[in-house]
Amino acid sequence: MPHARNPQLNGNGELIHLLSVEGLPRAIVTQILDTAANFASVNDREVKKLPLLRGKSVFNLFFENSTRTRTTFEIAAKRLSADVLNLDIARSSASKGESLLDTIANLSAMAADLFVVRHGESGAPHLIARHVAPHVHVINAGDGRHAHPTQGLLDMYTIRHYKQDFSRLVVAIVGDVLHSRVARSDIHGLMTLGCAEVRVVGPRTLVPCDLAQMGVRVCHTLQEGLADADVVIMLRLQNERMSGALLPSSQEYFKCFGLTPEKLQRAKPDAIVMHPGPINRGVEIDSAVVDGRQSVILPQVGFGIAVRMAVMSIVAGNDA
Amino acid sequence: MPHARNPQLNGNGELIHLLSVEGLPRAIVTQILDTAANFASVNDREVKKLPLLRGKSVFNLFFENSTRTRTTFEIAAKRLSADVLNLDIARSSASKGESLLDTIANLSAMAADLFVVRHGESGAPHLIARHVAPHVHVINAGDGRHAHPTQGLLDMYTIRHYKQDFSRLVVAIVGDVLHSRVARSDIHGLMTLGCAEVRVVGPRTLVPCDLAQMGVRVCHTLQEGLADADVVIMLRLQNERMSGALLPSSQEYFKCFGLTPEKLQRAKPDAIVMHPGPINRGVEIDSAVVDGRQSVILPQVGFGIAVRMAVMSIVAGNDA
Amino acid sequence: MPHARNPQLNGNGELIHLLSVEGLPRAIVTQILDTAANFASVNDREVKKLPLLRGKSVFNLFFENSTRTRTTFEIAAKRLSADVLNLDIARSSASKGESLLDTIANLSAMAADLFVVRHGESGAPHLIARHVAPHVHVINAGDGRHAHPTQGLLDMYTIRHYKQDFSRLVVAIVGDVLHSRVARSDIHGLMTLGCAEVRVVGPRTLVPCDLAQMGVRVCHTLQEGLADADVVIMLRLQNERMSGALLPSSQEYFKCFGLTPEKLQRAKPDAIVMHPGPINRGVEIDSAVVDGRQSVILPQVGFGIAVRMAVMSIVAGNDA
Repeated sequence: MPHARNPQLNGNGELIHLLSVEGLPRAIVTQILDTAANFASVNDREVKKLPLLRGKSVFNLFFENSTRTRTTFEIAAKRLSADVLNLDIARSSASKGESLLDTIANLSAMAADLFVVRHGESGAPHLIARHVAPHVHVINAGDGRHAHPTQGLLDMYTIRHYKQDFSRLVVAIVGDVLHSRVARSDIHGLMTLGCAEVRVVGPRTLVPCDLAQMGVRVCHTLQEGLADADVVIMLRLQNERMSGALLPSSQEYFKCFGLTPEKLQRAKPDAIVMHPGPINRGVEIDSAVVDGRQSVILPQVGFGIAVRMAVMSIVAGNDA
Repeated sequence: MPHARNPQLNGNGELIHLLSVEGLPRAIVTQILDTAANFASVNDREVKKLPLLRGKSVFNLFFENSTRTRTTFEIAAKRLSADVLNLDIARSSASKGESLLDTIANLSAMAADLFVVRHGESGAPHLIARHVAPHVHVINAGDGRHAHPTQGLLDMYTIRHYKQDFSRLVVAIVGDVLHSRVARSDIHGLMTLGCAEVRVVGPRTLVPCDLAQMGVRVCHTLQEGLADADVVIMLRLQNERMSGALLPSSQEYFKCFGLTPEKLQRAKPDAIVMHPGPINRGVEIDSAVVDGRQSVILPQVGFGIAVRMAVMSIVAGNDA
Repeated sequence: MPHARNPQLNGNGELIHLLSVEGLPRAIVTQILDTAANFASVNDREVKKLPLLRGKSVFNLFFENSTRTRTTFEIAAKRLSADVLNLDIARSSASKGESLLDTIANLSAMAADLFVVRHGESGAPHLIARHVAPHVHVINAGDGRHAHPTQGLLDMYTIRHYKQDFSRLVVAIVGDVLHSRVARSDIHGLMTLGCAEVRVVGPRTLVPCDLAQMGVRVCHTLQEGLADADVVIMLRLQNERMSGALLPSSQEYFKCFGLTPEKLQRAKPDAIVMHPGPINRGVEIDSAVVDGRQSVILPQVGFGIAVRMAVMSIVAGNDA
């Protein structure tokens, strides 16, 4: 009995959509990171422009507003010489009662090549990928609580850049793991690349014990979670969690799980500190750590452009 | 006594503005469709880009929000290598009390080449065309209930593509003909191209008998309207009509004028079904028809890009 | 004791940021105007495009909405072949509680080359310029009541274009000088270029006597202010001033300080009339003057594109 085809790959095992890090073979993840390494140097050049997507049409479909993420994809596409169309879908045909698939069919008929999709519902990019024509590609720019694969891949790029080999690394992911699509994508990426130990760290309401089923070590104190870690990934704490029953006050949270220079000393001396942004200084992380010598938060942003360029150029070269 | 000059043509009879299909000589309509046929193949190429408008500035002036229409013009202009500026006029200087003509004069002074204008008031694009400098061109992207000429032209393109010769065709336009700028542009296009019979079909509140003065056959039942038709153009039913006194319930409307596979059998077996979008499935048209073998609704969208590229490149080549 | 370095210049005295006209050496102002004169002809060409900023990323950061100003910068950058990213910051990360400097650091990490900043707070562009990397440039597109240097420079360009030599000119700036960043930038530009006499003209509430400390002549009647003037710069009257205690009614203001053809006769016969737009016809200026032979209001707009192209291309060529 044949298993269901991986929706991200074509018959030759080549990447045609990026929907989640979960399900990506290690060889594909490595291909993306290697390609990104080439593009990283483009972003330092005088003329930051390559003709790889010239004459291609990239549609940014943001059903959920995110200026920052949209900007990273827009700049990546423009540096590859694509034509970029930003669609503020919330204000548009969606509000005229058209279905998601009718909107996509309509835009595809304009000879779109690539959809970058951000959607509040988990699985929306998968649904779209199942229905587009063979020459059209879909990149998930964040869907519900499910996945944020380009963020996951840029985190892998960052770790590889600073630490090279994953096989001896201890990586701690700290904060609201339960609601974070970034954490989910990171965990899958780290597993795929053979990370020695992945820890998830936070209060029981945000890091429930059954997360251990994902193959990670669950820690409910920073002391335990940071001990001898090589990499510390801090998650953004959504303010809306604060007002609910999930958390005590912001001060209480910072006291237990906020990353300070003192607490960071539990990790290895050469540990790096990452954060997907935007940062809440003084909520999940102390300003001294953000701006400190171990922080690689700003380099992450630059790597993110290179990784998005890599994903776009790879999928655009492969047909279903 | 000389007659008033056609505002869409220069002294040599060349197209300089596209304001309405009404008033376009048959030779110009044919020129647009022929040019569009060349561009249609560009949209299937690997590199969908031509240098025809390189270094030209196209301003999308949308006084009325329409992401879909704006996107089709933006993509058409970018595929011709123009620089595209999107102006959300509603939020801008208009709100500072500046007049329409002062806004236009100001933008013209920035060395604009082409204005794509969507406006809630009928005639606004004509007013603008009367006041711009000789090298500036105006394309109407929909004005009030008056005209939507690029939609009308893409409908003509679609019909010609599937049916070639207009001289023996029966075309039925179904729905809210009274309030539809698309219907108005379609009727003028069909007349100009020598269509054998144009029918308008709908309830008396939306298709009053005096429409017959336009030279069309008025039908108040689908049975009569669809009989032996070669082309069926379904119009979008605006929801706001439903709540007023013009129509009974949505179910009642669908029962009488909604296009189902059964009712479509009244038309010729090779009749094509068109719709300007966005579609209200189950209101004016059944899903089985939208997705059926006679539907050319999605090809229409692609032809629309080619037609808009054609109109832009033609007017940009002619001076007043 | 060395004085604080001019934040707009590098160690070689070259322009790296444009923050205010105040503090710009005369040689730099002249360099900008001379460069703009070259670009002005580009805007009249068939192909309005130069490759000077190809592969550069220009970010329009508008913390305050201004479609008109944003458009002038966008078109200037595109004519220099830059990639332009428009960020509607108000709706974005700023609303997620991120600080201004964190937003800028994040965008800089995407390998931005040039930030065009509009901000409601005076000094925000200076703050940003102090914190960006050496290869990143900042252009102030209006900050609070402080400065609007590209408007000031385009006004200088306009005056030089029509009057050549500043050393014998009388320039009258009329209206709400107190709240106008345009007036402030104009005054500094005129002083720097050696203008013979600068007058500020308006009611005592909008033109207080202590403005004389800036080296200008304060006039509280149009009769005095316009007498033998070579250049008349009318300022836009913000409607919100009308409702406050600062002014009597709009009719009363127009009667005293509104520019009519009759009052303009007090100025020299070849005096030119300028206005930064958008115009309030019948509030600060009569329609007959706006559309009259002495008005250079529309040419100003075109010069503004050339001046913005000049500033962008100059700063992009200089490193900190």
